[in-house]
Amino acid sequence: MERRQRPRVVIVGAGFGGLECARRLRNTPVDVLLLDRNNYHLFTPLLYQVASSLLNPSDIAQPVRAIIRGAPNVRFRQATATGIDFAAQQVLLEGEEALAYDYVVVAVGSTTNYFGMASLEAGALGLKDLPEALELRNHIIRRLEEASRTDDPAERARLLSFAVIGGGPTGVEYAGALSELVRLVIPGEYPELRDDDVRILLVEALPALLTTCPEDLGGHARDELERRGIEVVTGVRVVGTDGQTLELSDGSNVPAGTVIWAAGVKPEALTAAINVSRSRSGRIEVDGALRLVGLRDAFAIGDAASVGHGQGEVPMLSAPAIQEARAVAANILRDMRGQRLRRFRYRDRGSMATIGRNAAVASIGPLRLRGFVGWIAWLAVHLYFLIGFRNRLLVLLGWGWNYLRFDRPVRIIARARTRP
Amino acid sequence: MERRQRPRVVIVGAGFGGLECARRLRNTPVDVLLLDRNNYHLFTPLLYQVASSLLNPSDIAQPVRAIIRGAPNVRFRQATATGIDFAAQQVLLEGEEALAYDYVVVAVGSTTNYFGMASLEAGALGLKDLPEALELRNHIIRRLEEASRTDDPAERARLLSFAVIGGGPTGVEYAGALSELVRLVIPGEYPELRDDDVRILLVEALPALLTTCPEDLGGHARDELERRGIEVVTGVRVVGTDGQTLELSDGSNVPAGTVIWAAGVKPEALTAAINVSRSRSGRIEVDGALRLVGLRDAFAIGDAASVGHGQGEVPMLSAPAIQEARAVAANILRDMRGQRLRRFRYRDRGSMATIGRNAAVASIGPLRLRGFVGWIAWLAVHLYFLIGFRNRLLVLLGWGWNYLRFDRPVRIIARARTRP
Repeated sequence: MERRQRPRVVIVGAGFGGLECARRLRNTPVDVLLLDRNNYHLFTPLLYQVASSLLNPSDIAQPVRAIIRGAPNVRFRQATATGIDFAAQQVLLEGEEALAYDYVVVAVGSTTNYFGMASLEAGALGLKDLPEALELRNHIIRRLEEASRTDDPAERARLLSFAVIGGGPTGVEYAGALSELVRLVIPGEYPELRDDDVRILLVEALPALLTTCPEDLGGHARDELERRGIEVVTGVRVVGTDGQTLELSDGSNVPAGTVIWAAGVKPEALTAAINVSRSRSGRIEVDGALRLVGLRDAFAIGDAASVGHGQGEVPMLSAPAIQEARAVAANILRDMRGQRLRRFRYRDRGSMATIGRNAAVASIGPLRLRGFVGWIAWLAVHLYFLIGFRNRLLVLLGWGWNYLRFDRPVRIIARARTRP
Repeated sequence: MERRQRPRVVIVGAGFGGLECARRLRNTPVDVLLLDRNNYHLFTPLLYQVASSLLNPSDIAQPVRAIIRGAPNVRFRQATATGIDFAAQQVLLEGEEALAYDYVVVAVGSTTNYFGMASLEAGALGLKDLPEALELRNHIIRRLEEASRTDDPAERARLLSFAVIGGGPTGVEYAGALSELVRLVIPGEYPELRDDDVRILLVEALPALLTTCPEDLGGHARDELERRGIEVVTGVRVVGTDGQTLELSDGSNVPAGTVIWAAGVKPEALTAAINVSRSRSGRIEVDGALRLVGLRDAFAIGDAASVGHGQGEVPMLSAPAIQEARAVAANILRDMRGQRLRRFRYRDRGSMATIGRNAAVASIGPLRLRGFVGWIAWLAVHLYFLIGFRNRLLVLLGWGWNYLRFDRPVRIIARARTRP
């Protein structure tokens, strides 16, 4: 392997953490190589809007090369990391030669976790990456088309019953967005259907929704969802599905032709492949400076890293990943200069979830916002953080347009042709 | 089958012809049922811009239901027609009960024609529908990524050699757009590559480009393409490909890691399945009133119909399809009133093709436009005909943005996850 004059930092993953780490190392005396299996960075907080026909994939996905453009010491490579040889200081790649590093940052993020329930893994639709979101969007529109063609009430009820599993922000937001999609589109465009043919159920295993927010916001979200006709069930776990019904832990069965899984994520496979000590949730154990235990040159951040906070770990969200990325970039530079590394401390700046038109809940420091004010706060925060000016402008236009017209524009069932 | 009080017109295909026919029958005393295998209408003239990362699929594809919204006597059904039983007056559907009609309009359009060359069918990428355009877009970006990872000059040359087959408007426009994409993106974002690593070849079997336009415009297009570094070869047919090189009819072989096929279309399979007399090009023979020969209640329009014009047939373009659709809608209403049907006459209003930034050729009646003026004319005509206000606005914004920034925004390799 070639050796460079300047230390080479390999960052595995171009999500919120990996990208921020690369940004912080821009114009510093290191060579940065950013790896990702996709050629784009995904703004995951708005993925549910792609899955509900409101936004185009390219509104929330931007080529990594376009983002790092103009940073002379940062390069990108589309590749899948399969392991890390810590002794040889190499990242192992699928179908390619291994990559030498002086420092490595594991920022691989997380993937849908079905907790080993095979019927859900096979039968439910996830909502964690772009292919899943596109498949979910296509599936919903396909179900409306299928329901419009049948005269059998039982079949129609099956086609139009949707169960969203998981009462965290993703589940709450998707249930609200799905309800809006259906209720905006059916009256004008599906004369064969009535909007109360549609049944949307939200299931949460814990006793309340949005348990990471202060409790009153979860209760408010529940009221808002129920006001929109969504059935909310809490304190019950999902056990399985047969494509017709959902089996619950209290022994009951509820009709659900479509099951959308937003109830859990787990660190990406690489975290298991590298054979280091991990927490119960599968996240990599790190020291106070975010280094893998016992290693000087390997760091982990974001969903892949187990960082203590209160009684447990920091949540798997973009905010801690970004904070950790900044700390790691600074610590790499300190290590190069022979300085002592700094201890990372997570600062919780709050969380928020939107329920639909004019309604969101937000907890920002001491503030508790809800309704229209919460919605405006949610909108401002998400636009601010959307990377790239073009995207911000187009997303704003898309939202404005939808707001004025009560429409969902991106309702095409499109799929790339697979090569033979 | 149920029988209706008002005659039911079944239109097979929601392309330019089918949609226009449905529009013309809106608020008339018939029930219209529009069928299409996709849930969207596709603005095919801009498909090459999706395939060159400039536009999003939803900019040029709109749900049929959104277009016919507000027409109380027009309904849509997503279904694939597999045949027509003219004696029983039924359209046969894939996996569903047959549909009764009083009048049927065959408007199924066309698909890529490889003229029986198996190596091209297997190895070339088409550019006729949305899945093909998305696959082509993904493929081009994937090739740039692969080329950026290799140190082998021969392999890099293979990955970056693109041959566009067909010197009609689609081939000319795609070659121009591909060259712009590559030359805009490589210098800023692929430090591993140089833009003259890329080779783009345009091959046309006839002696000139754009043979449907007056000859000087084809010559002008050739100059513009060559000025952009595209190699243009005319008077030579493509015989086959092995994924590395392109085999030509003069015995020569040229390097081409990617072959893009824009050299021919043929009517969709339904035209062959219905067992009626067809022209040499496979289009359905119709009488002067656009009825299938010998049938009172069955019409064909657009690419599916063989309509005489000059020495041959009307071209397979949107303009004749729309004119024929209007004639058929009027003739159906005349037939219902017991009036004599009118004879269809095609009026050629010209054609146009864009070569890239500030350059297009257009032939509109007696006018011959080129360069910037041709480009403005092309832009105005295409925006005018893009269906739906939102799309027109967003497409205009996308274009304006690209024009100001010299950028190609939609460069993500995205694909819907296929269900297991």
